[in-house]
Amino acid sequence: MMQTGWEQAWLSYAEPKDACEVPVTCCPEEDAVLGRAKEELALAAKELPQGKMIWLKQSEEWDKEAYQICVGASDITITGGSSVGILYGVFGLLRRLRTKGLTDGSWSESPKNPLRMLNHWDNIDGSIERGYSGRSFFFSNDKVLFGERTKMYARLCASVGINGVVLNNVNVRQKATNLITQEYLPAVREISELLASYGIRTFLSVNFAAPIELGGLSVSDPLDPDVIQYWRRQTQILYREIPNFGGFLVKADSEGRPGPFTYGRTHADGANMLAKCLEPYGGLVIWRCFVYNCSQDWRDTKTDRARAGYDHFAPLDGLFLPNVILQIKNGPMDFQVREPVSPLFGGLTKTNQMLEVQAAQEYTGQQIHVCYLIPMWKEILSFRTYVTEENDTVADIISGKTFGQTNCGICAVANTGDDQNWTGHDLAAANWYGFGRLAWDPELSSEEIAQEWIVLTFGAQEKLKKVLGDILLNSWKAYENYTSPLGIGWMVNPSHHYGPNVEGYEYDRWGTYHRATRTAIGVERGSAGTGFAAQYREPNASMYEHVETTPEELLLFFHRIPYDYRLKDGRTLLQYIYDTHFAGVEQVEHMIEAFCTCKELIDEKRFARILSRLTAQLQSATEWRDRINTYFYRFTEQPDEHGRCIY
Amino acid sequence: MMQTGWEQAWLSYAEPKDACEVPVTCCPEEDAVLGRAKEELALAAKELPQGKMIWLKQSEEWDKEAYQICVGASDITITGGSSVGILYGVFGLLRRLRTKGLTDGSWSESPKNPLRMLNHWDNIDGSIERGYSGRSFFFSNDKVLFGERTKMYARLCASVGINGVVLNNVNVRQKATNLITQEYLPAVREISELLASYGIRTFLSVNFAAPIELGGLSVSDPLDPDVIQYWRRQTQILYREIPNFGGFLVKADSEGRPGPFTYGRTHADGANMLAKCLEPYGGLVIWRCFVYNCSQDWRDTKTDRARAGYDHFAPLDGLFLPNVILQIKNGPMDFQVREPVSPLFGGLTKTNQMLEVQAAQEYTGQQIHVCYLIPMWKEILSFRTYVTEENDTVADIISGKTFGQTNCGICAVANTGDDQNWTGHDLAAANWYGFGRLAWDPELSSEEIAQEWIVLTFGAQEKLKKVLGDILLNSWKAYENYTSPLGIGWMVNPSHHYGPNVEGYEYDRWGTYHRATRTAIGVERGSAGTGFAAQYREPNASMYEHVETTPEELLLFFHRIPYDYRLKDGRTLLQYIYDTHFAGVEQVEHMIEAFCTCKELIDEKRFARILSRLTAQLQSATEWRDRINTYFYRFTEQPDEHGRCIY
Repeated sequence: MMQTGWEQAWLSYAEPKDACEVPVTCCPEEDAVLGRAKEELALAAKELPQGKMIWLKQSEEWDKEAYQICVGASDITITGGSSVGILYGVFGLLRRLRTKGLTDGSWSESPKNPLRMLNHWDNIDGSIERGYSGRSFFFSNDKVLFGERTKMYARLCASVGINGVVLNNVNVRQKATNLITQEYLPAVREISELLASYGIRTFLSVNFAAPIELGGLSVSDPLDPDVIQYWRRQTQILYREIPNFGGFLVKADSEGRPGPFTYGRTHADGANMLAKCLEPYGGLVIWRCFVYNCSQDWRDTKTDRARAGYDHFAPLDGLFLPNVILQIKNGPMDFQVREPVSPLFGGLTKTNQMLEVQAAQEYTGQQIHVCYLIPMWKEILSFRTYVTEENDTVADIISGKTFGQTNCGICAVANTGDDQNWTGHDLAAANWYGFGRLAWDPELSSEEIAQEWIVLTFGAQEKLKKVLGDILLNSWKAYENYTSPLGIGWMVNPSHHYGPNVEGYEYDRWGTYHRATRTAIGVERGSAGTGFAAQYREPNASMYEHVETTPEELLLFFHRIPYDYRLKDGRTLLQYIYDTHFAGVEQVEHMIEAFCTCKELIDEKRFARILSRLTAQLQSATEWRDRINTYFYRFTEQPDEHGRCIY
Repeated sequence: MMQTGWEQAWLSYAEPKDACEVPVTCCPEEDAVLGRAKEELALAAKELPQGKMIWLKQSEEWDKEAYQICVGASDITITGGSSVGILYGVFGLLRRLRTKGLTDGSWSESPKNPLRMLNHWDNIDGSIERGYSGRSFFFSNDKVLFGERTKMYARLCASVGINGVVLNNVNVRQKATNLITQEYLPAVREISELLASYGIRTFLSVNFAAPIELGGLSVSDPLDPDVIQYWRRQTQILYREIPNFGGFLVKADSEGRPGPFTYGRTHADGANMLAKCLEPYGGLVIWRCFVYNCSQDWRDTKTDRARAGYDHFAPLDGLFLPNVILQIKNGPMDFQVREPVSPLFGGLTKTNQMLEVQAAQEYTGQQIHVCYLIPMWKEILSFRTYVTEENDTVADIISGKTFGQTNCGICAVANTGDDQNWTGHDLAAANWYGFGRLAWDPELSSEEIAQEWIVLTFGAQEKLKKVLGDILLNSWKAYENYTSPLGIGWMVNPSHHYGPNVEGYEYDRWGTYHRATRTAIGVERGSAGTGFAAQYREPNASMYEHVETTPEELLLFFHRIPYDYRLKDGRTLLQYIYDTHFAGVEQVEHMIEAFCTCKELIDEKRFARILSRLTAQLQSATEWRDRINTYFYRFTEQPDEHGRCIY
């Protein structure tokens, strides 16, 4: 069963004391989405300026999701490019009212990215892969869940402009394979209709082996006529039930998942076959590029997992149909606290692309540690790929600006679950909120987003805005400080990925080695090593090729560096590791101190909840500090220059 | 369900071709045990010399378990100190017949150790903790199993003189707590009666918190009158059902198990309370000394797990009642491939003691690797404690020779399960067989035991005896060679304990650290370190105190040693580590080569089974070699002197 208690998160409007009529006039013919818009205004009645008339209008010339708001002396006009635009306008108006307040005048907004999606890694049994916020609110015990919580979820998503949701885990196992069949479609439709009334399209992750597992075929070869026939029929059934269905997300030939490789076919063969089936209905195939050899031998120093995505997909550029999108993780590895941007961005020029980031804090503290990810995502989005002379950033590419594409955008692995506060850590909700806001407008600053979220969630007290703002904005760097240094990544406990284990993956099959010795650490990825740096366009390739020009925060991602190497500020690499690890723990101590001064400003329940997570974070950060420092001390037997305790 | 197919192991007698009468005359009044003796003779009819009369006699003056066999021209007389002695005589006769053959004359035997027990770590759900041979044949799904397999098990045990069996895991959880109650006693009695007919007493592991979990009390304080009353009543019920019940095995205050510490009581308080309840019925309390702090902080270099057993129990010497036995693991840590003998042997002088060894190969290859443990156990048994001037070995102490005790002996954690061949690896049965034989007579050599077992199991072909004998006798040393060096122990994967992981426990809570750095490895346990060496009596204490006099195979158990330290043969420690790891893998390669030359001498099924385990062993041994060598190479950057490949 889905937990029944949940909170309103950033949509906790002031409760109307009395019955409180909102004077709304709706000009276009009312549809489900406009119904939601009006309903939202009614819920937020107490937040609205008294006595002002609200007009909802439509302008067919605009982008469907765009809106304009005009505030006059006696009325407010929300004009949208469609019902959805109007709904976004309503949420935009309410956000403005609750954060900055309203003055007369007008402003317009339209989203920069066509697709702004959440990927839920929810399993059909109700567990969530890499879920840190309780159980799924979509599935339980092989059943689809639907209720008031689903609606609250849809409101939260729509309020920040999320317009697509993949309900189930990319690892499609057991009964989840059946989600595309008549057995589950009526239940999926119920969710899909609700989400659609909030402007959100529903997608499903599919099992590439479904023709075998469900269709009774002996192969799932994408060029086999029976297989094609299977998918065609299945798609037909699906769209008969859910006409506005979004499409499929596919993890193929990855970490044990089936795919076209089995039959000597390419990813283009696989994706295009599905795309042809979906095309008549306007459906999309979102095909993940997370393909690498996960049975590497640690003795093999030639294979470099970082190369795998580019090596697999760059040769296929231009071969995918227009309704196929390649979904690319932000970095070449796997959502580490620090990675370079995937060289596929800039590598692909004739392929629709979607950036995948991870709001679920798999490697960034699992929602026990606070780690506000917007600054990380902004760095990724603003990375210049040099694929063109201008408009060449990741943000430009995925928004369609670079190549004029429309099937493109950004998605995040969701960090939600059925916990009362939705995200386990109260402060982790800032990543959900922030993802939506950033996907809508990548120009928003990390500070702006944080402040919006704080005010909407906790109110507008200046002190709280300052303290929580500082905690959020320093949190990513703090986490990076006390965990694995300078882009080396990993050093986590295998399998669950929480807490330090410096050699946890060092002799394993996952291709994530740091190869530390008594003198140096890191995998050389320049031309003297695996050659990964050359996958970037110039001048990035040259920048990463050389130790001196590699941005220091990525030094150990690209190069093998001796501990006595002097960084730009004169410190040795070793001393830098010590310093950052002591500093990171101190940052957490300061967070706790500062947070405790806000006791009176937050309700008891949330204060206790956050404090208990911060306390757990401090303990874990201390463990990280000590284990990392000890590890390098044992290799070098060089004490800390400042005489601090290393065990 | 218990697997239905099983093999006869070392009791695979020649099948009688025709109905084959054995002329047996039984002089004492026939009881259940004598019935088994005659039954066994009938089963082995084809093995017996044709036409000789067999007399079964009893001599009341002898030790009950002793027997004498006189072989005359026309008859064989087996005289026992009791029915059980006669049964042992029958098994002794059959063993002699099937190994050396029979000549006229007589010989006598009596067991050196009063208690010769197996501890099964079988859980009531049917799983086996550290079980590598399938599921339990005593329990399944909270039910007690009983059938023909139970009888085969009893015959195998009795044939090697095992006279006590603990049915259930020392970690008594869930429904296993209820085994001592009316709910399970009728089923336990069924097993108990069968075992008793083979001279085996049945014991149960009990949950020290039973008064709380079952008795509805709020405490399990051993001095609380209600708690005492609970155990008294429970014992009464138990003995009413099973009059010859052996007693309780208790793991208290150990690895999370409940115990007297909770109530500020000592282990003596706890054990004696139970002992008083059991005393009227002749029952025993076997109390485990495996007590240590399993929540240690790796930063804490003062606490030494090796010290814990002695520190906890030596001060209690003399405080235990006569029907209490302390069960002491062979080493101070936990069944590693190489440990010194526990200093409790020789430390305790007024306490009944039982040596606990582990036939289940938890840390010695999990019955995938062949590891014949008799040589290890013999080293332990022959260790001189210097507690007295003579008769001071571990064997002397546990047999009662040193202090004249009778409640003492030896036990092994069983390596059995419901696999067809009982022990997963066919060759692992040699440890079960050998344990019984060694417990009966610690003077038997490892070679003798191995050869007996080979002939009884595979037949008497000289080539097979030579090849399998070599494999068995070299196997422990080979395993030691390619795993953790010179007594340092651990370096295994946490939790399941299979395969290498050099830093697997290094930063964990289990107190099993090696603290390797770029220059040295090991925990100093002399007076300059944790002082563990001083827990031994002189001259052992001085021997272990100094690096020069510490036996080299234990060097890294007792001392922190630099890699460039020269061993007695002039090699550096580092080169020794490299050499032994290359050598260990070569030994496995030679085992496989030699074994393959025996293809024609073993039935296909067993040949394939053994070969597949040897192949898996080679793969695992190679991984051990490479990971250990690489680990030390990374610390030292010193290549192998012989230029062999280190990754």
